[in-house]
Amino acid sequence: MRVFLSGPMGVGKSTVARRVAQRLGLRAVDLDAHIEAKAGCSIPEIFARHGEPTFRAWEHELATALVDEDDVVVALGGGTVTDARTRRVLLAAGVLVTLDAPLETLMARVGEGSGRPLLEGDAAARLRTVLDARRAAYAECHARVDATGDVERIADAVVAWVREEPVAVPLGERSYAVEIAAGCRSRLEARTANHPARVLVADRNTAIYLPASVSERDAVVVLEPGEEHKDVRAVERIWDGGLSLGGDRNACVVAIGGGVVGDLAGFGAATLLRGVGFGQVPTSLLAMVDSSVGGKTGFDRPEGKNLVGAFHQPRFVLCDVETLRTLPVEERIAGLAEVVKSAWLEGEADVAALEQDAEALRSGDEEATERAIRRSVRTKARVVAEDEREAGARMCLNLGHTVGHAIEAAAGFGGLRHGEAVALGMVASFRIATRLGDSDAVAEARLIALLARLGLPTDLERHLDAHALSFVATDKKRAGARVRFVVPGAPGAYRIVPLGIDEVGRMLTSGSP
Amino acid sequence: MRVFLSGPMGVGKSTVARRVAQRLGLRAVDLDAHIEAKAGCSIPEIFARHGEPTFRAWEHELATALVDEDDVVVALGGGTVTDARTRRVLLAAGVLVTLDAPLETLMARVGEGSGRPLLEGDAAARLRTVLDARRAAYAECHARVDATGDVERIADAVVAWVREEPVAVPLGERSYAVEIAAGCRSRLEARTANHPARVLVADRNTAIYLPASVSERDAVVVLEPGEEHKDVRAVERIWDGGLSLGGDRNACVVAIGGGVVGDLAGFGAATLLRGVGFGQVPTSLLAMVDSSVGGKTGFDRPEGKNLVGAFHQPRFVLCDVETLRTLPVEERIAGLAEVVKSAWLEGEADVAALEQDAEALRSGDEEATERAIRRSVRTKARVVAEDEREAGARMCLNLGHTVGHAIEAAAGFGGLRHGEAVALGMVASFRIATRLGDSDAVAEARLIALLARLGLPTDLERHLDAHALSFVATDKKRAGARVRFVVPGAPGAYRIVPLGIDEVGRMLTSGSP
Repeated sequence: MRVFLSGPMGVGKSTVARRVAQRLGLRAVDLDAHIEAKAGCSIPEIFARHGEPTFRAWEHELATALVDEDDVVVALGGGTVTDARTRRVLLAAGVLVTLDAPLETLMARVGEGSGRPLLEGDAAARLRTVLDARRAAYAECHARVDATGDVERIADAVVAWVREEPVAVPLGERSYAVEIAAGCRSRLEARTANHPARVLVADRNTAIYLPASVSERDAVVVLEPGEEHKDVRAVERIWDGGLSLGGDRNACVVAIGGGVVGDLAGFGAATLLRGVGFGQVPTSLLAMVDSSVGGKTGFDRPEGKNLVGAFHQPRFVLCDVETLRTLPVEERIAGLAEVVKSAWLEGEADVAALEQDAEALRSGDEEATERAIRRSVRTKARVVAEDEREAGARMCLNLGHTVGHAIEAAAGFGGLRHGEAVALGMVASFRIATRLGDSDAVAEARLIALLARLGLPTDLERHLDAHALSFVATDKKRAGARVRFVVPGAPGAYRIVPLGIDEVGRMLTSGSP
Repeated sequence: MRVFLSGPMGVGKSTVARRVAQRLGLRAVDLDAHIEAKAGCSIPEIFARHGEPTFRAWEHELATALVDEDDVVVALGGGTVTDARTRRVLLAAGVLVTLDAPLETLMARVGEGSGRPLLEGDAAARLRTVLDARRAAYAECHARVDATGDVERIADAVVAWVREEPVAVPLGERSYAVEIAAGCRSRLEARTANHPARVLVADRNTAIYLPASVSERDAVVVLEPGEEHKDVRAVERIWDGGLSLGGDRNACVVAIGGGVVGDLAGFGAATLLRGVGFGQVPTSLLAMVDSSVGGKTGFDRPEGKNLVGAFHQPRFVLCDVETLRTLPVEERIAGLAEVVKSAWLEGEADVAALEQDAEALRSGDEEATERAIRRSVRTKARVVAEDEREAGARMCLNLGHTVGHAIEAAAGFGGLRHGEAVALGMVASFRIATRLGDSDAVAEARLIALLARLGLPTDLERHLDAHALSFVATDKKRAGARVRFVVPGAPGAYRIVPLGIDEVGRMLTSGSP
């Protein structure tokens, strides 16, 4: 267990670190003191003798070395996380909490900046400049905790977040945390406390998870469930809900439901008054592991799925596995296809963990499901952080989707669940990978065995005919007459290969019965 | 006349600067040589002895001193524009052109980096890193010119941009130039050359300005004109137009029309396939000076105007004053209200220039109109660059709009033009400013005289009754029962003052007949 406390000078990182370490039985480390001990001189002396760049280089080295130690609570320096490399290492290695306090509180604590090299001169003005410059860096964390008031209360809040193990999606000022826990939907009130108006969006099936505390600050929009209702008419109902509250730009829209509700509500939030806050309470496994994270929102047009939309990141995501109890078993199992996809993109450890838990996952064991969600969300967060707007790297998330979408479309609405189609698309990807030499029959058999143990379909032949293949051509991700195909290798490896649509067809059908 | 050439090392800034200076009869200055002369040593020596921060400080000082000289073409250093302050000074003082060339061309020219302190080590990798880091800084310019090939052709392109005097809207990688010239709509082909598909959006009145070169890569959408058709149905037609071309993410949407066409097409572009390119060919004075610049897009709902939308910046704006010839005279004159507003926000020089040109503007003189558009767009660009998403500073653009919107809404669709209502709103703002002591009767009379000479209405009493005042309360920019009112002072000065809605009413009506 590793905890990193960040935040500006004077916010109380060292004091809180000691208290949190006591609570959790960990060792407290003060990074600045650690650097001074190694350097044999004080930080102002390091700045004076060697300059800030040298100090930052040492800080990077020592901070990232700390991730090899277990059971520590580290009070970081005020500027440690301004180095993006350091920040990403810390986010991956433990729970990174930013402590916040108003400028006045910080000034009262640091005094006139004695011993703080960055505050020489007009200390308040300098501090304001420093805080502005670090805004995006401080936002990239697992949680922000108000560090005014009693240190015990602050330590309580930090400990609660550490125990929670949230997954951070680090996107500068658009960063957010994904919370994964049985019962966590009850935190909706806390997460929306600062919004004077809320539009709560559910569908008829998920309306049971609407909070009990609906009041006059809320508009409730209950949609018809299903992909066939994922259209602009549904979005209009969300706009109307928001506008019925008076059109406050500090309003937020909350999606309580599966992927369709999330995509519609997210688009409503992206466009209501040119953009208001957004939160997700996904109630299907597919939404928890895939659509609720990453900011893609939108709806369908007669020409195809998700053809109109916007990138709009949520401010919070609450994955409450309890809500999966009311999900039809087949829906839950279909969601496991995206879990398999993420594991293969991530690496051997994640694939092995899935194999270990396969029967527990199939039967709906909540602890195994929570672990699987956490792993999948970590992968998704890493990929989205690299490429928020799908300019390149994010393309890998299409593994299994090019053929999967085609099979799903060919089966027609209601013919096959999205996850079932993705499972078949994964089988198709591995067949192509084997033909191209990126994978082999052993890996293909391993994938098929895992899908089968999870209860997912693997009988590609039954679903893949000329009709289905014709839909590959209409996938909107095509470039000319070629598709950019995600070809899997060993777990953790893949290539994006432009393939002719006829080539895909030939590789998938030649030699099939 | 001042020209600044920016771009990476090896792109040929000094050579092109000398050629451009010859063509335009100006003096060529090489900033690096200028710094070396002042410092008495070479740039690598400055880096070695004093470090990069010191070099950048000298560079800032010397570069910004050059804006006091007239008639120069300055070859900047490769990193000069990475200082945001320097960049803004240069953008305001002359025409800043970024020269572009592929990495391979640059590498071939700079060799292995001898004498280039930033390229020590693996020069190609270092250069790539430098280019990535400077991407947003290089984008903030008046024009980008391809600097491969013949130097005469490159100089031609630079000279053409300099003569054009475009206005830059500096927004990092979302930067763009506003071109203002009679006949400039013919540049649409050049500005959309890289887009494999175009959705050309006009209304029945502006369809005459659709390009003659419509081909199979284009979808043409001709909307019903007027605010009463600014709804989601119109946006659906734009989506359908885009999707009929096959759903290519490299498509662009081009608005050819007034503010309604621009707002609808911009929203269509913001949301088609989660965002495609966008260009504006505004054909009304109001659209040229206001709505085509700044990236606000959207449409109306029964609850009010522009309640659904997105921020989506255009990639180009072509203000062709020739298109104003077919605009009804009253429409053109109404657009002058926003010109008056901008001038008052900008300062005395702009107000005086308007007073100088008032009769020419009223009669539609194209040169006077072009000058007025350029001044207004400069003001708008400056304000938008400070606050792209209307979090604060951009609020000043609401000068005259709080009461203006109310009068417009009370008059009903078709009762009063937007610009006419803004003129009355300006009168109301000055009345309130005088009551609050921010302005006085002399300034109020000056404003009213200018509006009257331009042909705009000033008879506030006739339009402002209890019915109209009741609409102030439903303005979506209100915070609680108060409005954030833009109170004008002397030209160039204003305050944002939270006022109770009843206070606004009292100040406007007490003492009126």
